Amino acid sequence: MRRINLGLIGWGTVGTGVTKILEDKEISGALTARLGAEIFLKKVADIDITTPRDCSIPKDRLTKNAEEILSDPEIDIVIELIGGIEPALTFILKAIDEGKNVVTANKALLSQHGIKIFDKAKEKGVNVGFEASVGGGIPIIRAITQGLIGNKISSIYGIINGTANYILTRMSDEKKGFDEVLKEAQALGYAEADPAYDIKGIDTAHKLAILTTLGFGARISLDKIYTEGIDRITLLDLAFAKELGYKIKLLALAKVDQDGLEVRVHPTMIPIDSLLSSVDGVYNAIYIIAGYTGPTMFYGQGAGQLPTANAVLSDIVDIAQNILSSAPGKGMTMAHKILNLSEKAIKPIDKIISAYYLRFSAMDRPGVLSAIAGILGQHSISIESVIQKGRGEKAGVPIIMMTHEALESDMQKALSEIGNLPMVVDRPLCIRMENLPS
Amino acid sequence: MRRINLGLIGWGTVGTGVTKILEDKEISGALTARLGAEIFLKKVADIDITTPRDCSIPKDRLTKNAEEILSDPEIDIVIELIGGIEPALTFILKAIDEGKNVVTANKALLSQHGIKIFDKAKEKGVNVGFEASVGGGIPIIRAITQGLIGNKISSIYGIINGTANYILTRMSDEKKGFDEVLKEAQALGYAEADPAYDIKGIDTAHKLAILTTLGFGARISLDKIYTEGIDRITLLDLAFAKELGYKIKLLALAKVDQDGLEVRVHPTMIPIDSLLSSVDGVYNAIYIIAGYTGPTMFYGQGAGQLPTANAVLSDIVDIAQNILSSAPGKGMTMAHKILNLSEKAIKPIDKIISAYYLRFSAMDRPGVLSAIAGILGQHSISIESVIQKGRGEKAGVPIIMMTHEALESDMQKALSEIGNLPMVVDRPLCIRMENLPS
Repeated sequence: MRRINLGLIGWGTVGTGVTKILEDKEISGALTARLGAEIFLKKVADIDITTPRDCSIPKDRLTKNAEEILSDPEIDIVIELIGGIEPALTFILKAIDEGKNVVTANKALLSQHGIKIFDKAKEKGVNVGFEASVGGGIPIIRAITQGLIGNKISSIYGIINGTANYILTRMSDEKKGFDEVLKEAQALGYAEADPAYDIKGIDTAHKLAILTTLGFGARISLDKIYTEGIDRITLLDLAFAKELGYKIKLLALAKVDQDGLEVRVHPTMIPIDSLLSSVDGVYNAIYIIAGYTGPTMFYGQGAGQLPTANAVLSDIVDIAQNILSSAPGKGMTMAHKILNLSEKAIKPIDKIISAYYLRFSAMDRPGVLSAIAGILGQHSISIESVIQKGRGEKAGVPIIMMTHEALESDMQKALSEIGNLPMVVDRPLCIRMENLPS
Repeated sequence: MRRINLGLIGWGTVGTGVTKILEDKEISGALTARLGAEIFLKKVADIDITTPRDCSIPKDRLTKNAEEILSDPEIDIVIELIGGIEPALTFILKAIDEGKNVVTANKALLSQHGIKIFDKAKEKGVNVGFEASVGGGIPIIRAITQGLIGNKISSIYGIINGTANYILTRMSDEKKGFDEVLKEAQALGYAEADPAYDIKGIDTAHKLAILTTLGFGARISLDKIYTEGIDRITLLDLAFAKELGYKIKLLALAKVDQDGLEVRVHPTMIPIDSLLSSVDGVYNAIYIIAGYTGPTMFYGQGAGQLPTANAVLSDIVDIAQNILSSAPGKGMTMAHKILNLSEKAIKPIDKIISAYYLRFSAMDRPGVLSAIAGILGQHSISIESVIQKGRGEKAGVPIIMMTHEALESDMQKALSEIGNLPMVVDRPLCIRMENLPS
């Protein structure tokens, strides 16, 4: 029986998940039956091959030297799961150069060097699978590139970072502050020791860059994605959001209109009766509005060893089918063609129009509200509602406002002026609102 | 430039949608660029080719004779959109015999003759695409056969009939009775003149048969799927469900345990905080629990001209890629291999275990409750809660009970005995409950 030989570089959490699933006899038997060929993990490379993993791969198939995989002419598919830019980029380019297909979960790499990788893959006629790079176990890459093909996509909204969503959900459910929940999430392994990547929105921006490229055929440079994290969100904001009929989510958002493409990541108030607002905890979801298909949503675990490993496996099977049917480059060509579409203008954050939730902390003195409202009015921002509760607290009382739609640059100028008022004690917080369909 | 020639049989709502999308220059241009080939609608066959449609296909490409498509050696893909069993089956088998690939949205046909069609397709080495047969615009077929490959699926829960879901949603939102909402839905074109297919659960059962075959590798004969419609659901039930923290949905359900496969369609109480319970109106969703990937949900429009036509188009593009890469039969082989898996034992409805919502209508007399509770107890059914409201109404007062888990055969025996009690005035209603994760 024909063998499809795999070489795995990076035997961490997800890599170990891949070896575990491949060792599941029921699954591997079913795959062999479907493919008419055996998927065989020929070599695993990692700098640490001694720490025991929860799988039983023989020692002679382990190596510390990735070169043994990259230069092995029998290996058909190289699975890159080390993450980060280097040496992952060098390994992937070398693998493609050797005529090997590649599967990767590396969103940081793809969002920055995707074009280079796909160009080389096209030149060499090999596949690059990256289903695991966005949304973990959610088959969102296939959904956009195949299921929704023949649609003009108008908007993509994603909750695509499980750590940030877990923190916001627990703050909201348990009325615990950001720092406390973050510490607990770190203890439970749901957040990294250095959580910046997740809570500052950077990981979300990487994934959004990939989705935007696929959905809108746009080359995206990461520095054009406005990115803001969740670390200034307080229990007060979550409570007021609820009172106003909203939930606060770290939303990835890409939408197109006549003026270009908006691509941004920030805490966002979405209506509590929208489907996305029900996506809690470590779960992810991507809500897409497509011209002919209309709204769709794809929901599942956005991270975790086995969901992500399974997404890697789905790419392996797809590429194996291409190899077996002598149609190399099919999937790759498709991704490449998408990537080759036009460079779309990305609207700078200053130019976006949004409704806003604003929280000010002000001394409890007469005239505060009128001063704030006056500055907003001077910048053509009209207020939809105001909530002011609690009086005479030392540190300042919160004043909450919701505005009608306004231009971001007007809002930022107004907030800067308000922040400079002597009776305003803290930097104003603003959360953009997005009226998703329910 | 190479052309992929299509022949469309059945120019009704979805067929017209396909011609409309193919006439969209932006879409067809993008597809040509991706494929490196033109998708060309060479012929459209329908018994009615004179009624004007909202698209501009030249008259010389219209025919009343499907044979002109089936026997045209230039046509690569036959799109069957007439629905029903015959002549659709004959046309599809003839097309495959002629070595043509087939795309169909015909769930009734696939659920009854799918095996025959796929067997012939395998023999002839052609593709059969059927993404449009379940879930309209939701790419659920791809999700199960490709995205979730490498998983052992343990359960599938679907809201997969838009008409039934629309009726239940409007009853619940507007406090209008079943008959009134059904009439309005018919007037709006959301329900057929003969609504039995949708409201009796038959359409849902057809789709569930396809999902079960794909998800569990099980050959399903339709008569083994227990099927119950929504026509006995009243406003009272919707109100009590809400009070108890549930929603009532027409649920398609397939799940496997040691004793075999449960495959059933019936009104079901699901927790109001479960994601599926937020799926309202004409929307559909399929919630799948898979071994490695965990829970996923796929949401979108389950019917409608353009969503369904777009699903047809996604199959056309997939098959075109296979043709262009000289890999005929790739997609087909995969579906076929799945269909070839074992015949699984389907648990008869008598043997299932469920918690139940029960509604009795009884005369307001002493001893009624104790008589009902006594019979339930004799059949080993224990009551979790009872609601009895309103007194002295002529037609009988409603008594609502929720039970703990019980065996269906015990429940049916108890209900039959209770229904025969002289003080019980109407046939008892029972709604099965399903504790989906939130």
